[in-house]
Amino acid sequence: MTVPSDADMIVLSRRPASSLRAGDLTLERRPLRAPGPGEVVVRNVVTSVDPYQLQMLRGSPGHTSLAIGDAVPANSVGTVIASKDPNVSVGSQVLTYTGWQTYATTTIAPAEIADARLGGALDWIGVLGTPGVTAYIGMHDIGRVRSGSTVLVSAATGAVGGVAVQLAKVAGARVVAIAGGSHRTDHAVEGLGADAAVDYRDPAFPELLERAAGDGIDMFFDNVGGRQLTRALAVLKDHASVVLCGSISSYARPEAPDAGADLTAAVTKRITLRGYVASDHYAQRLLPIRAELAALLRAGRLRAVVSEFEGIERAPQALGTLFDRASPYVGKRVVRLAEG
Amino acid sequence: MTVPSDADMIVLSRRPASSLRAGDLTLERRPLRAPGPGEVVVRNVVTSVDPYQLQMLRGSPGHTSLAIGDAVPANSVGTVIASKDPNVSVGSQVLTYTGWQTYATTTIAPAEIADARLGGALDWIGVLGTPGVTAYIGMHDIGRVRSGSTVLVSAATGAVGGVAVQLAKVAGARVVAIAGGSHRTDHAVEGLGADAAVDYRDPAFPELLERAAGDGIDMFFDNVGGRQLTRALAVLKDHASVVLCGSISSYARPEAPDAGADLTAAVTKRITLRGYVASDHYAQRLLPIRAELAALLRAGRLRAVVSEFEGIERAPQALGTLFDRASPYVGKRVVRLAEG
Repeated sequence: MTVPSDADMIVLSRRPASSLRAGDLTLERRPLRAPGPGEVVVRNVVTSVDPYQLQMLRGSPGHTSLAIGDAVPANSVGTVIASKDPNVSVGSQVLTYTGWQTYATTTIAPAEIADARLGGALDWIGVLGTPGVTAYIGMHDIGRVRSGSTVLVSAATGAVGGVAVQLAKVAGARVVAIAGGSHRTDHAVEGLGADAAVDYRDPAFPELLERAAGDGIDMFFDNVGGRQLTRALAVLKDHASVVLCGSISSYARPEAPDAGADLTAAVTKRITLRGYVASDHYAQRLLPIRAELAALLRAGRLRAVVSEFEGIERAPQALGTLFDRASPYVGKRVVRLAEG
Repeated sequence: MTVPSDADMIVLSRRPASSLRAGDLTLERRPLRAPGPGEVVVRNVVTSVDPYQLQMLRGSPGHTSLAIGDAVPANSVGTVIASKDPNVSVGSQVLTYTGWQTYATTTIAPAEIADARLGGALDWIGVLGTPGVTAYIGMHDIGRVRSGSTVLVSAATGAVGGVAVQLAKVAGARVVAIAGGSHRTDHAVEGLGADAAVDYRDPAFPELLERAAGDGIDMFFDNVGGRQLTRALAVLKDHASVVLCGSISSYARPEAPDAGADLTAAVTKRITLRGYVASDHYAQRLLPIRAELAALLRAGRLRAVVSEFEGIERAPQALGTLFDRASPYVGKRVVRLAEG
């Protein structure tokens, strides 16, 4: 394949105030640098949209801030089309942090080789990529899910939550899912195998959650925070644990009234809540976890659920769907940049 | 001393909606039962007001609910004036859960003997009682305070917070206090020994807190929750811990906008938050902790700070001050029922 002279990319034109507006991100074509010694050129096949990207665009504390004019960083799965690295052959599938761009000139770390025997591009962007590994570390290393326990998962049909639900089932737990809208609660049960699913938009949510929780929740895998966390604490058992994986309720609207969690019940119930960042654990855990996830995929015990958006120009829209309660999508949101 | 035939007590007449209103609690005189075998009669000298009492009066989940007509439970320190328990002599000082009443007929457990050599009534109601032991367990058993670390304490001039601040100083930590009003921040520094104190009512609170935190907080001893917790997370170091001792921001007004905490930073900073209930630890820890607290009192390294209200009829007002941001009081709020 010939190496093109330009690449299309989405760049930050204006910092979003809270939610993303038209004009904050723009499509640009920029020259593609020829690879130097040790570098390769990657043709990206799919790229990722993730909640944390909005934080980066907004320049929120605790996140690397993007400068105006920078291309949006993201995990992308692609194919090496030219290589000046003797250890990386043309045709290799790679999972890189080259962002929302069609082609990129970059170096490839050994951990970025996305072994095609373990999965294709849609597997690597989700289940074998950051969302799946994040779900695994939260469910096992942090939450220590046990067979016979009851696990609650919020944003249960999202990229991380969907894997978390399936991993808890594989571990032998009873799983209660929280999601928004009946298409999502249906998907949580029928598509992901949750034992029960509750719609947080239902006015009877607290009562429905209490009924679904049965004799109480042992571990809550929380992607949302805010009022959903307050409601969840009410159905946790004494000494239960909360895995703080994300807090999407406050990413888009930090000062919204439902972005705050009332932790009173965490005191009286002796709850421990643990925040974690998956990449802290990669040095020891990334390779064995990927091998286990790939084996589960192969055995059909884990499904890669993706919603695809076609074309790089739709990446901003795809990101917006993560914060749009009315959006119809489930699973890992990906943007397809090329065939492959 | 003769045993009276009646006792004065404060009883629940009407369940408070959110905050306490006049008429929710009323003073009644009821007959005092004569002691049966194994029982004693206690003349209470001081009784306690505590934030959790409002939860009990309101019948909040996770708290024993009080029935209409019941006397308000509370820790009280008093003197045995008649005894049918061969192990408890007349004149013994006792710390019981006999509530807001002048006299009570009750049994005395060994742990309820309040050894007068360790302290007087005002020591036992606070530093050697539930608030002091709660502060000790939170600061040491849960928070594992270390010399040279920086500790943040909210509600730092309250009954628990005031002991927590002093214990952190004894442990060799640098202490930053959060309190409301300049009379309280002054007291935190001058009366309790905090290295810095920040007024959460100051419009510049986030910036003042950041300055006081220096290079970051290692452990946050949180009595408040809600927005103060959100602000505190912003100045915690990565991997810091939060001891969830109380959540007074939401006791009085559970649906208030500042009763919710945004835990986004707890994810990115890998924070662990631990709720605890001190009485879980009493079996192993109560006696050694009391001995240590008494030794610190004796050595002058710990002060018992109390605000006294005179007369049982003022107990409801004293309770109200715990939720009144404008109240002038600091330390353990107690109601004096008798000389002693």
